[in-house]
Amino acid sequence: MVNVSVIGATGYAGAELMRLLLGHKRVRIVHAVSKSFAGAGLSSVYKNFACDILLKAMEPEDVCEGSDIVFTCLPHGKSAEIVPGLLKRGVRVIDLSADFRYKDANVYKEWYKLEHPAKELLSQSVFGLPEIYRERIKSARLVGNPGCYTSSAILALYPLLKAGAVEPAGIIVDAKSGASGAGRSESTKLSFCEVNESVKAYGIATHRHTSEIEQEISLAAGVNIAISFTPHLLPINRGIISTIYLTPKTDEEGIKKAYEIYSGEPFIKIFEEGVPEIKHVTGGNTCAIGFVLDKRVNRLVVISCLDNLIKGASGCAVQNLNLLCGFDEREGLNDTGWYF
Amino acid sequence: MVNVSVIGATGYAGAELMRLLLGHKRVRIVHAVSKSFAGAGLSSVYKNFACDILLKAMEPEDVCEGSDIVFTCLPHGKSAEIVPGLLKRGVRVIDLSADFRYKDANVYKEWYKLEHPAKELLSQSVFGLPEIYRERIKSARLVGNPGCYTSSAILALYPLLKAGAVEPAGIIVDAKSGASGAGRSESTKLSFCEVNESVKAYGIATHRHTSEIEQEISLAAGVNIAISFTPHLLPINRGIISTIYLTPKTDEEGIKKAYEIYSGEPFIKIFEEGVPEIKHVTGGNTCAIGFVLDKRVNRLVVISCLDNLIKGASGCAVQNLNLLCGFDEREGLNDTGWYF
Amino acid sequence: MVNVSVIGATGYAGAELMRLLLGHKRVRIVHAVSKSFAGAGLSSVYKNFACDILLKAMEPEDVCEGSDIVFTCLPHGKSAEIVPGLLKRGVRVIDLSADFRYKDANVYKEWYKLEHPAKELLSQSVFGLPEIYRERIKSARLVGNPGCYTSSAILALYPLLKAGAVEPAGIIVDAKSGASGAGRSESTKLSFCEVNESVKAYGIATHRHTSEIEQEISLAAGVNIAISFTPHLLPINRGIISTIYLTPKTDEEGIKKAYEIYSGEPFIKIFEEGVPEIKHVTGGNTCAIGFVLDKRVNRLVVISCLDNLIKGASGCAVQNLNLLCGFDEREGLNDTGWYF
Amino acid sequence: MVNVSVIGATGYAGAELMRLLLGHKRVRIVHAVSKSFAGAGLSSVYKNFACDILLKAMEPEDVCEGSDIVFTCLPHGKSAEIVPGLLKRGVRVIDLSADFRYKDANVYKEWYKLEHPAKELLSQSVFGLPEIYRERIKSARLVGNPGCYTSSAILALYPLLKAGAVEPAGIIVDAKSGASGAGRSESTKLSFCEVNESVKAYGIATHRHTSEIEQEISLAAGVNIAISFTPHLLPINRGIISTIYLTPKTDEEGIKKAYEIYSGEPFIKIFEEGVPEIKHVTGGNTCAIGFVLDKRVNRLVVISCLDNLIKGASGCAVQNLNLLCGFDEREGLNDTGWYF
Repeated sequence: MVNVSVIGATGYAGAELMRLLLGHKRVRIVHAVSKSFAGAGLSSVYKNFACDILLKAMEPEDVCEGSDIVFTCLPHGKSAEIVPGLLKRGVRVIDLSADFRYKDANVYKEWYKLEHPAKELLSQSVFGLPEIYRERIKSARLVGNPGCYTSSAILALYPLLKAGAVEPAGIIVDAKSGASGAGRSESTKLSFCEVNESVKAYGIATHRHTSEIEQEISLAAGVNIAISFTPHLLPINRGIISTIYLTPKTDEEGIKKAYEIYSGEPFIKIFEEGVPEIKHVTGGNTCAIGFVLDKRVNRLVVISCLDNLIKGASGCAVQNLNLLCGFDEREGLNDTGWYF
Repeated sequence: MVNVSVIGATGYAGAELMRLLLGHKRVRIVHAVSKSFAGAGLSSVYKNFACDILLKAMEPEDVCEGSDIVFTCLPHGKSAEIVPGLLKRGVRVIDLSADFRYKDANVYKEWYKLEHPAKELLSQSVFGLPEIYRERIKSARLVGNPGCYTSSAILALYPLLKAGAVEPAGIIVDAKSGASGAGRSESTKLSFCEVNESVKAYGIATHRHTSEIEQEISLAAGVNIAISFTPHLLPINRGIISTIYLTPKTDEEGIKKAYEIYSGEPFIKIFEEGVPEIKHVTGGNTCAIGFVLDKRVNRLVVISCLDNLIKGASGCAVQNLNLLCGFDEREGLNDTGWYF
Repeated sequence: MVNVSVIGATGYAGAELMRLLLGHKRVRIVHAVSKSFAGAGLSSVYKNFACDILLKAMEPEDVCEGSDIVFTCLPHGKSAEIVPGLLKRGVRVIDLSADFRYKDANVYKEWYKLEHPAKELLSQSVFGLPEIYRERIKSARLVGNPGCYTSSAILALYPLLKAGAVEPAGIIVDAKSGASGAGRSESTKLSFCEVNESVKAYGIATHRHTSEIEQEISLAAGVNIAISFTPHLLPINRGIISTIYLTPKTDEEGIKKAYEIYSGEPFIKIFEEGVPEIKHVTGGNTCAIGFVLDKRVNRLVVISCLDNLIKGASGCAVQNLNLLCGFDEREGLNDTGWYF
Repeated sequence: MVNVSVIGATGYAGAELMRLLLGHKRVRIVHAVSKSFAGAGLSSVYKNFACDILLKAMEPEDVCEGSDIVFTCLPHGKSAEIVPGLLKRGVRVIDLSADFRYKDANVYKEWYKLEHPAKELLSQSVFGLPEIYRERIKSARLVGNPGCYTSSAILALYPLLKAGAVEPAGIIVDAKSGASGAGRSESTKLSFCEVNESVKAYGIATHRHTSEIEQEISLAAGVNIAISFTPHLLPINRGIISTIYLTPKTDEEGIKKAYEIYSGEPFIKIFEEGVPEIKHVTGGNTCAIGFVLDKRVNRLVVISCLDNLIKGASGCAVQNLNLLCGFDEREGLNDTGWYF
């Protein structure tokens, strides 16, 4: 059993994390911190919950009391302010914000327009994608849980670039996400009638996840890579589908071979034929990947799907928790989604 | 040609009214007033518009300049504050708020928890449901355009109570509305992820439209009627379906006969067999009505559908405009919706 | 561990049952039978599955080989043809069709227009609603798993009628269901564009679930009850909300007291205040119930929500399995849904 | 006034065409042909219609009786079988299938796997995109109305290639369409629960619209162009958003200048800043186009939106009708959509 606390338990990622942790047989939840709903029960804020957990406003240091591991689900910038204090008190931290995903504080500053509040921690934080950094995560004190678009793109691209199966230049990621990716919000732009029966592109050429993807695939390729990344807002609750356009350097067999790096991965599903749809992954912690090689125009089209709240956020965080604790990596997580 | 202005042009009902007025061959739009978006073009706020209309913040009296008819699309309470001034300047007013729908200021006060700011006008305002008050609307100076749930329920109930075809006691209206009925809103409760893939009842026993329905059907029946009214929020943009439960006092023929009162009505469609669905009316100004007589339990079930933004609000307002101006009542309105 | 087989594993209820059984720690799946997809893997038909289960076309008797319990997920009429043979081979059966829900073959015949193929079993089959028939289910050989609308309505009504808290006459159930309730279908009527952005009532006065509800609430009340039941099709995947209109014979305290019969129930959630929404129950096995007493018109409005595929079908079937096997009733089931 | 008939009036494009024609002041509908629903009224098949049009099964030649213009809304291959006979009888034809969009019967054969049944007409048929072929359409006897994805892509690409503002190599069109694009269908794959809350790519590298787009942009560029085209199915009724990736050969001003070719076009809206969303065009005949120049990676991202049933099919057909008849091109068409 491990004692965990969650700071920011009532945002969408935080609430989904609570749901997963409550179903995890080896987890005891010590504190659930929420400024906005302090004093209320979690089940009165999100009435899907059957549990009896009280939300509290607490000082970060008090959260450490009795906790082995603390999840921080705060906006970027806010996490980096409190994480140093948490670490000092000896807990290990899995941070779901963008603050500890970067190797280079300058890249963070460039994309987030913010001086990083805890630069000195970047050298010890581990990028929390188990499929790439499993061993380092196991012994990490601080995990920077990756972004949702990010995981979808990196998991599809990493094996190809690692194997030299595609050109590193000219990569395009056309990604589409369900509205929960925008988090709990009062913005009119996210009101039902604005989102429903429509789709829009946003953050073209400027979305912050671009930089995370570039960092990781550059490391895989061993060269600096800059990509085109276009996110779109979908009228669905959950799920991301990324359509990725690449210039292949090998044939179908070569592509399949590159993806064999994932053999044995509990939460990666490579389609032998055809490509995945969002509904193949909703509700589970799986990232499903398929591809089509379009020889006519010498283009490789890769489709990568995951549930943005699970594999793209809270499920991945639980997977990291399992690694930190030496649990079975699948504990508390489904590989089978709910189809509808 | 008639010169019209719209106060409150950027709420959902206001914007829909602008859309309809722009397609109306005999209307010239003089002023489009919006506090929140003053200085912007309508087509920059709602980018579906192709027109070049400037939104202005104006004093109500200035709006009258050059206008024959003014539409007021403001929250209840706000309309009643400015309408007296508008009328004094000689324009005719079609008000889309609740302020001029009531005969009795006490009923208004009871349901809206507000002392009516312009009680003295209630005796001259006409309830703007053309199918019942056509003649009086033609010569009205002030029309109180009915609510969306209201129109759906009254149009179904009025003929039955008028004809004595049903018991006035024990009436139940179980109504379901698309999210645009809640208007343009920043509330988290109306955010996409909260509304999508769910349905909820709200305002049970307390929804204000109850009182409007009761007023009109009591008049039809000649006795005071109190009803059960339960609205529900649907994960769709537009449309209301009201399922109404009644105790019949006649047979199928009697029911059909009662509805013959609508013969010749351009915007009422009585189903000979089967019952309407929301998609039969979306996009048009039609209210579609059908029924099933359940002899086993001696119950009449009436289904009434309309588009809450058109027949339930702005389309009805245009119909009233046509009556005020002596135009063909169908001018600028569709009887055919768009199915999907 | 118990050995179970599923006949009809690829309809919506069958596939959902497979999903739940695969997550059940004390279940071993022996056979998964599907005529339409025999020879294919379950994960190739429903690509959300990560497992490696082969779908087979088998004679019912062969299914019994190695099975302790067989779930039959077939259309009504079909189940009753094979269940006698299954029982003869000594397995226990949980049937998800309508065939074994009735006490009286005449009622079945009247509503299903079909002579019951296995009348003789009706006296020994148990209506599979654990909250009412827990003890009898434990030792049953044959369980008739209730319908989705049915469970939603009965669970709300049973305590009130049992306690005499409401009049048995004049009950109205206005129910709304997600489209998965209609099952896997090729009908144009269930195609996306026909269902989306619309709501319709169907089967008014004739829907078969009416008779199931009447049977069970009549037993609770000790008098014959006939109700008005109107189902509606919603543009969502999962979930039922039933809005129930009753004449109260007691006050709020009396209603609350009646529902205390559920205290300790793992899958019933009575709202202390407010009423549930569909999203409070989606993904979990909970039936959530709330009410408003409208004193103005002497009406009790009860709202009852459940996930039609889980508590309304396959989850309830797993709950019954747990009872049959003496397992913890919550094994393999969530009390917390997924909110979105 | 012009006398028109529609063959295939009850598919989605046909029904939408009927809706538009019924609202067209200068059109008289002579025959509405439907094999599947012969003998029924249009308003009984699509209950949104208020009109009283009888659907008939007729021989193509009989349709010509009294008709000036015939619309053929049939599957590809079927149109080409009957169009020669129609033309012989002196009517002019607007065909909504793929049969008369191609210059080269070999291209048709390659992508449709079908020997073209009326090759000899390809030299006289005109590709029905008014923004490119307006003058030729005016005098055409046979118009091949373009595909929905096609129009969205060509309208965005044509000015850029014409002006040499982008490289003709490496063009990627990532397109997303509402489900009505798949037409009226009994396929389980298009059932509500399969489409809702999901998005999928399909026809990767093989979708037939690829060839139409290539034909027209090759003509614009004066070189043979092959593109990557990936369509996706969206859980919405209407609308296409195409995200197009290009290598720019000029700066922002150069791009804007290229699009000036559309100045004065009634149904093209070029965004000065920002990019369009689907909801900006739904319900209207407008194609809205915007772009972002991503200098960091030297990529031009163009977003093009239209309503697949209107500008992408039936609205464009009406626009062509107006050209054929010398009417105002905007007659019977909206430039303002319905937002929601």
